[in-house]
Amino acid sequence: MELLKKKIMEVGRVEAGGVLKVDSFLNHQLDIELLNEVGKEFKKRFEGKKVTKILTAEVSGIAIAVLAGQYFNVPVVFAKKTESKNLDKDTFQGEVYSYTKEKHYKIRVSKRYLDSSDHVLIIDDFLANGQALLGLKQIVDEAKAQLVGAGIVIEKGFQKGGQLAKEANIHVESLAIISSMEDGKISFKEPSQE
Amino acid sequence: MELLKKKIMEVGRVEAGGVLKVDSFLNHQLDIELLNEVGKEFKKRFEGKKVTKILTAEVSGIAIAVLAGQYFNVPVVFAKKTESKNLDKDTFQGEVYSYTKEKHYKIRVSKRYLDSSDHVLIIDDFLANGQALLGLKQIVDEAKAQLVGAGIVIEKGFQKGGQLAKEANIHVESLAIISSMEDGKISFKEPSQE
Repeated sequence: MELLKKKIMEVGRVEAGGVLKVDSFLNHQLDIELLNEVGKEFKKRFEGKKVTKILTAEVSGIAIAVLAGQYFNVPVVFAKKTESKNLDKDTFQGEVYSYTKEKHYKIRVSKRYLDSSDHVLIIDDFLANGQALLGLKQIVDEAKAQLVGAGIVIEKGFQKGGQLAKEANIHVESLAIISSMEDGKISFKEPSQE
Repeated sequence: MELLKKKIMEVGRVEAGGVLKVDSFLNHQLDIELLNEVGKEFKKRFEGKKVTKILTAEVSGIAIAVLAGQYFNVPVVFAKKTESKNLDKDTFQGEVYSYTKEKHYKIRVSKRYLDSSDHVLIIDDFLANGQALLGLKQIVDEAKAQLVGAGIVIEKGFQKGGQLAKEANIHVESLAIISSMEDGKISFKEPSQE
């Protein structure tokens, strides 16, 4: 998606530890106009697929999932990372390993909001190590729902998430695939390689 | 807002400890169509006011703020609750007291995304004790930005947040004001009392 890649080139900053900062439009300040285009693009990429629910994980997946939800005309459910008295006791759970924090944590969705009749599209901001995506897939599987695929805004193509998703048979559509961030220079995979 | 009150009456559940569960449409599963109407209503309530930015706090303010952002045509910024390597070091901070957890925590916005030229509309899902709202106001004040007001989806009118906001000179527009949840029965303030 050219508009998105252009934005990443303009404002994305590569920081120590291989962090790509895109907080001016994607995960702190939100560029609603651009993220609306992202939502439309997801609709186009999954055209013709039956989707009854969009699933994402808090926090930074929510904005994109909600804007995309408008084009799919379906409810959005976000998995919660924290145990909270506001969350039902009866949940589907996924386990996520955080490389940053070097520990596992759980993400949870109340059993009220997913069931075996659902066709679920996962939407998230990043695909890097693939751990969040696999945790979300676990929730879909636990609910015995159908996983339609995953719409990803930015995939770090040089990390293993894409490969893990392929092995798990997840149809991934990434709108921008970064092939390298070496020396602070962001390069994208050519569309023919995507 | 009648549509919203109707939804709360239909699906809201009053639980132990005075918790109003509206997670079927507002803070776990998200009813995008309804929340879009909420966004439009905020636009109507603040018609004619200059707004350059919408500010909310993670997690459950994000969905509403993003959908509302479409009607105001401005970027949305969400304050972060957790220190993260993805957040700039240089931040505006607000202090929030959590009655549930009985402790203070900080919410933060990078100084890149608010400044003294901004006219800020705060949007949040709930107004109860008013602590989150006052923390967000602190951030706006620190940035020396103009606070336009606060758009709230559900106000618990029997808690002190509304009064505190009035004392702090914040123009609050709440789309549904609950006057009582005694014995599990939800009552709203009459529009004339709002």
